[in-house]
Amino acid sequence: MSNDHIVRSFDEELKRLAQSISQMGGLVEAALAQAITALSKRDSQLASAVVGADQRIDTLQSEIDDQVVRLLALRQPMASDLRTVIASLRIANELERIGDYAANLAKRTIALNSAPSMRPTAAVIRLGKQVQSVIQETLDAFAQGDATKAQAVRDGDLEIDELYTSIFRELLTYMMEDPRNITPCTHILFMAKNLERVGDHATNIAETVYFIVKGQHMPADRPKSDVSSLTMVDATGLATVLDKEAH
Amino acid sequence: MSNDHIVRSFDEELKRLAQSISQMGGLVEAALAQAITALSKRDSQLASAVVGADQRIDTLQSEIDDQVVRLLALRQPMASDLRTVIASLRIANELERIGDYAANLAKRTIALNSAPSMRPTAAVIRLGKQVQSVIQETLDAFAQGDATKAQAVRDGDLEIDELYTSIFRELLTYMMEDPRNITPCTHILFMAKNLERVGDHATNIAETVYFIVKGQHMPADRPKSDVSSLTMVDATGLATVLDKEAH
Repeated sequence: MSNDHIVRSFDEELKRLAQSISQMGGLVEAALAQAITALSKRDSQLASAVVGADQRIDTLQSEIDDQVVRLLALRQPMASDLRTVIASLRIANELERIGDYAANLAKRTIALNSAPSMRPTAAVIRLGKQVQSVIQETLDAFAQGDATKAQAVRDGDLEIDELYTSIFRELLTYMMEDPRNITPCTHILFMAKNLERVGDHATNIAETVYFIVKGQHMPADRPKSDVSSLTMVDATGLATVLDKEAH
Repeated sequence: MSNDHIVRSFDEELKRLAQSISQMGGLVEAALAQAITALSKRDSQLASAVVGADQRIDTLQSEIDDQVVRLLALRQPMASDLRTVIASLRIANELERIGDYAANLAKRTIALNSAPSMRPTAAVIRLGKQVQSVIQETLDAFAQGDATKAQAVRDGDLEIDELYTSIFRELLTYMMEDPRNITPCTHILFMAKNLERVGDHATNIAETVYFIVKGQHMPADRPKSDVSSLTMVDATGLATVLDKEAH
């Protein structure tokens, strides 16, 4: 009886941990959505709110860390439970980084709003929507313990990388057209890069979810198609992709 | 007797874990140093070697993860030992990211080498040296369990942030001067940003080291002086820093 009680209660603690992570996921998803809205509506007030809300996400991560340490100390879980608990720690860490990127997007939106509207912003908003849907899919995969959905996140990330690479090239040509475009385009470039990184973190989470569900690693063949670090665009705006071997 | 043996052996396992992390730290430090050398000597072959070596760092991180899970399962450490083990996991994770940044620096070096040498590269190399010394200090703090050294890392990171902000402004003016500078300067901009991020990860490690040594968090008042996300430079090259409130 007493043993049964302990088992039930441990399950409840694991459930509570999963809930905390889902809550953190919800906050991060909202922060990202608001950052993208702030960008598209040129709304500095909303952007400031996103920057302010990051503190709450950071606090939640600390709380999850404490929850995990307490759970490990009191429950000393074994085997698959132990891996799940460690995986939770990792997911919380990835979510915290995504929160940071959302806050950084919002900060750059505030900076951008001091200059006239730029056309490439539209492409970044498109990228942002794609990233949002990948984050949603990732959090669904976690909440539903769905390995198939977790695997699908990777395909979504592939699209993000492709979109990012095309935005990168587009931005370079804008900068070449008119020096006045350079500063705002630099911010937009970092925004696009932030979104591309969010996609990578979503993939990390998805891989961790897959591991929790299946008890084994997702096949290692992770596609990667952001080749912008190998891209040089000459003054005519012609983009060439360098030696892919080094990627 | 038997109990004493178990205790000794657990200490040995903790020591082995610390050694694995120091080894990973050494590899990351070397990768960063080589990436900076490759940049300053325009050595694409060395840069390729850095990109290739990142795999080894990633593998070591997986091994440390496994070591931690095994240790938790078999030893079920309590209180401060448990916190140390969890902290090790975090440090390994931060080191892995620094390794990624070193590899990315190397990739961009290869791309840069296809264009003529750029003057702002010198500033990035200077930034790289500063980051290197901060990483060294961080790893020393970890190896020696030195909380004072860990706190000093923060000051070093402050210098990194200031240097980064000044490079960011310098690069914008270069891009405005001549459109042919834009593509290489974009790579240099990302390189500088990567180095600035490495400094942040070093600070995270230092905070974790402090926590292991002191059993409490480093005072939360972490200074932050990268204000580049709030910087706009107008076409005349005049830099203005926007509303710091939102930072």
